[in-house]
Amino acid sequence: MKSQITNVIADFFFEYETPRQVLVRNRRVGVVCRIIQLGVLAYIIGWVFIYEKGYQSVDTAVSSVFTKMKGVGYTNVSGKERVWDVADYVFPPHGDSSFVVMTNYIITEGQRMGNCPELPGKHNCSSNADCEGGRYKRTGHGQMTGRCVNSTKTCEVLAWCPVENDLNIPDPALLMSAENYTLFIKNSVTFPSFGVSRSNLVEGIDGKYISKCLYHPDNDPLCPIFRLGDIVKLIGFDFETIAKVGGAIGLVVDWTCNFDYHVKHCKPEYRFHGLYGNPDGTDKVASLGYNFRYAKHFLENKTDIRTLLKVFGIRVDVIVQSLARKFDIIPTLMAIGSGVGIFGVATVLCDLVMLYLLPKREFYKNMKFKYTDSHVQDPESEAGSTESNGDKK
Amino acid sequence: MKSQITNVIADFFFEYETPRQVLVRNRRVGVVCRIIQLGVLAYIIGWVFIYEKGYQSVDTAVSSVFTKMKGVGYTNVSGKERVWDVADYVFPPHGDSSFVVMTNYIITEGQRMGNCPELPGKHNCSSNADCEGGRYKRTGHGQMTGRCVNSTKTCEVLAWCPVENDLNIPDPALLMSAENYTLFIKNSVTFPSFGVSRSNLVEGIDGKYISKCLYHPDNDPLCPIFRLGDIVKLIGFDFETIAKVGGAIGLVVDWTCNFDYHVKHCKPEYRFHGLYGNPDGTDKVASLGYNFRYAKHFLENKTDIRTLLKVFGIRVDVIVQSLARKFDIIPTLMAIGSGVGIFGVATVLCDLVMLYLLPKREFYKNMKFKYTDSHVQDPESEAGSTESNGDKK
Amino acid sequence: MKSQITNVIADFFFEYETPRQVLVRNRRVGVVCRIIQLGVLAYIIGWVFIYEKGYQSVDTAVSSVFTKMKGVGYTNVSGKERVWDVADYVFPPHGDSSFVVMTNYIITEGQRMGNCPELPGKHNCSSNADCEGGRYKRTGHGQMTGRCVNSTKTCEVLAWCPVENDLNIPDPALLMSAENYTLFIKNSVTFPSFGVSRSNLVEGIDGKYISKCLYHPDNDPLCPIFRLGDIVKLIGFDFETIAKVGGAIGLVVDWTCNFDYHVKHCKPEYRFHGLYGNPDGTDKVASLGYNFRYAKHFLENKTDIRTLLKVFGIRVDVIVQSLARKFDIIPTLMAIGSGVGIFGVATVLCDLVMLYLLPKREFYKNMKFKYTDSHVQDPESEAGSTESNGDKK
Repeated sequence: MKSQITNVIADFFFEYETPRQVLVRNRRVGVVCRIIQLGVLAYIIGWVFIYEKGYQSVDTAVSSVFTKMKGVGYTNVSGKERVWDVADYVFPPHGDSSFVVMTNYIITEGQRMGNCPELPGKHNCSSNADCEGGRYKRTGHGQMTGRCVNSTKTCEVLAWCPVENDLNIPDPALLMSAENYTLFIKNSVTFPSFGVSRSNLVEGIDGKYISKCLYHPDNDPLCPIFRLGDIVKLIGFDFETIAKVGGAIGLVVDWTCNFDYHVKHCKPEYRFHGLYGNPDGTDKVASLGYNFRYAKHFLENKTDIRTLLKVFGIRVDVIVQSLARKFDIIPTLMAIGSGVGIFGVATVLCDLVMLYLLPKREFYKNMKFKYTDSHVQDPESEAGSTESNGDKK
Repeated sequence: MKSQITNVIADFFFEYETPRQVLVRNRRVGVVCRIIQLGVLAYIIGWVFIYEKGYQSVDTAVSSVFTKMKGVGYTNVSGKERVWDVADYVFPPHGDSSFVVMTNYIITEGQRMGNCPELPGKHNCSSNADCEGGRYKRTGHGQMTGRCVNSTKTCEVLAWCPVENDLNIPDPALLMSAENYTLFIKNSVTFPSFGVSRSNLVEGIDGKYISKCLYHPDNDPLCPIFRLGDIVKLIGFDFETIAKVGGAIGLVVDWTCNFDYHVKHCKPEYRFHGLYGNPDGTDKVASLGYNFRYAKHFLENKTDIRTLLKVFGIRVDVIVQSLARKFDIIPTLMAIGSGVGIFGVATVLCDLVMLYLLPKREFYKNMKFKYTDSHVQDPESEAGSTESNGDKK
Repeated sequence: MKSQITNVIADFFFEYETPRQVLVRNRRVGVVCRIIQLGVLAYIIGWVFIYEKGYQSVDTAVSSVFTKMKGVGYTNVSGKERVWDVADYVFPPHGDSSFVVMTNYIITEGQRMGNCPELPGKHNCSSNADCEGGRYKRTGHGQMTGRCVNSTKTCEVLAWCPVENDLNIPDPALLMSAENYTLFIKNSVTFPSFGVSRSNLVEGIDGKYISKCLYHPDNDPLCPIFRLGDIVKLIGFDFETIAKVGGAIGLVVDWTCNFDYHVKHCKPEYRFHGLYGNPDGTDKVASLGYNFRYAKHFLENKTDIRTLLKVFGIRVDVIVQSLARKFDIIPTLMAIGSGVGIFGVATVLCDLVMLYLLPKREFYKNMKFKYTDSHVQDPESEAGSTESNGDKK
């Protein structure tokens, strides 16, 4: 019994199966099929391996971004000079990856809770009956008291009074100096499956370089300091328009890395594009500009008063996009394996040509196939003769 | 020499190899194997290609979100009427993708730095010995002075005084009117590997439509304006409960796009779900509600006083989820290639049936295999006779 | 005609093709090839299936994070005692996934718009000619008035006066008590393609446990409450240094889940690492520390004055990293299919050995290949004799 198992194992190990093949010596078939096979081979090696780098596995990064603006703005509104520094024009102040730089504003000072008429154009009325007390309109400023104010012909509301009048946006923008502000970006990325961490302050970007560099797509592509006006220009926007009504900018930090090379070649690339529609004035989009409201609260004689700012600004979203590649045995063998499969498809195609299209097709059929006769049910009686019978049919 | 190489190349190009095959004419084997093969083919075409769209490559988007709330709230606390507008109830104010809408609050006005007793229940004491000076409890309001206050039986602390009393949450929520606030979302996505950018203000969503539409899952599925109460209802939450203790809502903008069709068919879909446990009152979770503290600072006679707000609110996280697909030659050929491989598995299965299970298995073995005799070590002497010997063994 | 089609279909279904094979009985070839084949099999089963879990499809999650700090800080600056609570030291206040905990600050109180000299070291001048009126330096505090102030030898600027002096950072950090602050994290993840949602408050993490637990990598790895000092120590930073100049910390919540097991086994793992360079004092990086400026505005006699804080702090970025896996028929069959392809490569390798390296190679060539004679162009005349001719050539 034991020797029987040993025999089976020995047989298994000392035997080797390989398909029998016909070598067809025919120029037409040969050339066609070899070209198909070489094409498949070229595709597998050239396209899958070299062009698409199919021997690599991919990973995206987790990342963290810190931003810091620098620069001073100056406004002179009806003789009142003011300077705006970072603590005044950046929202939120703590260096988030998505922030707004104020470029224009409508200020409403000294608002306090009280009753006052709505803006003309909102809640127009001719008598008290038009102003139902206790209700509010979604786009209004407050709750209606039920009174129609004669002088403005609008409903009176309980609101922060006086209500903000944002019908006229200052033009040109009050803080055109925003063009010269600079943005400094610190970005850290980690590719978890490759165990690699990188910062956008790569080799060669030291404190000395940073202290005097300014991003330029050709000359200083790795400098992490960007002039706001440059970014807007690179996108193709008009700074005056975007400064007036606001807009949103995507600053993409692109980490496309190949870790088959040294990690120092993994460098960020900065790209810029406009978000939510193009504020260049030519494109009619549904909702243009970027603004939000912001209030500073004060106490005056124990009552809360506030200064409301409608802020128009450039929102900058620092978007980190990452794709790293590295040699990996699994995708390599997957690519080879499925490449062999496609090779099989090539053989099937050639066989079809040979067996159905060539004039000598019957001859090749005989060469390729061996038939077992389905009418003879007893195999024993004809086992010895199948070979010759089958080949000639 | 040169002609030799030419010959080899000519031989290579004019020859074609194809496997020799046995055509087994047996109903049982034939039907079983053809069904297996057709099954594999149906799987490859039907499942991999049509159902799973295996001929497409996939990509996720980088995105940017801008949000804007509209609406006015009204409170009447002990006769003091107040109106709350966007600058009062949205945190942070600048239109971030993740923000909080205040629905309830506990206000502590006129806090100033000083010594005062802790809240009852925190730092209870019977004598000064229970209050070690200079230490603080992690959940306390300040640093202990070492004194036990008799009237409250709690330790005295150096803190913003009076300390906040948040034992009783206003019920019902003070700003139930939040139900009628509306949220406007601008979302821009870019699929970098397909080079496509889309905005949620798709074709047909123009300024006119936006000015009067309101999201409804069936009637207005593309309107980017959402009523807060509708969202909460769609999730299945009770607005009164969530408004009272706060809660977190995920607003998913789902971009599932097939770029084999025209890009205009790539439209967002909005979905909503509750985050961090269900505040419907039935589910006992570890940490319910959503609140944070926020202070407004004032100067009074050169000293800093503050108004502390414990804000309960609905946190809305706009989450962009994206998956785009487009025809790509690589995954197509990968799928075909590995499909051919599975075809090979089918053949192996059929062979196993034929060679080991059928009664005529010995006959089929002879047909399929040709044996080289392992006992004869000199191949030259028997080269001419292998064919017949081998087949009969 | 109809019977003809029926015949073709019957032929197709009752026939079965299988490749003819040579069984080579040769110890050397057998052992080599079987080992290669077994190696490929072991690779496919062991590596692709068991180690890399190639039978599973993968998905990443969309997630939402809520954070809450607890703890009280205390400062005593020139005899003025102060307590700092959450509303004072966390920016932004609303529980964002990325926030800053203030650990040190430079305060400039009572700034108001006016003319004052620049800091020594910035805009040095010897006469008015050095200070061009109306211009501003990017790193300066305001707009030059054109005057050179004699006492400081710096240009006069229109700015918030007095200008901030940030040359000396308080050392040690004023809020060293930040070491004892605790951070509570609520994190919700959804794997859209598997339809699974999880919270970091997993089974067993109930209100009772949370009220008294503190994260410890070995003892309490699932407690979502972290002591700031512990995190800094786990990263290997020196708390005194990071508290003084600021720094950024990545708190990674890692969801690596296998949904072939019960969903309750899908638990988060917390990891920590430093971002943007290592503030341990040994590493010279381009830009150390983390700080931002923040202003509180007050009204005094109708004029706007402000308190400017240069905040040094620990920025915590809660980064959710997720990878879920589940059995899926597509990757399983892809892996099997391409595995079969690699099997084919193994066969080709063995054939090369057998046909070109073995001494009996001519014999095996005759066994494996059958030649059609390329010189005879009329197949009919020699169809009967190909078998013997071909095999002997």
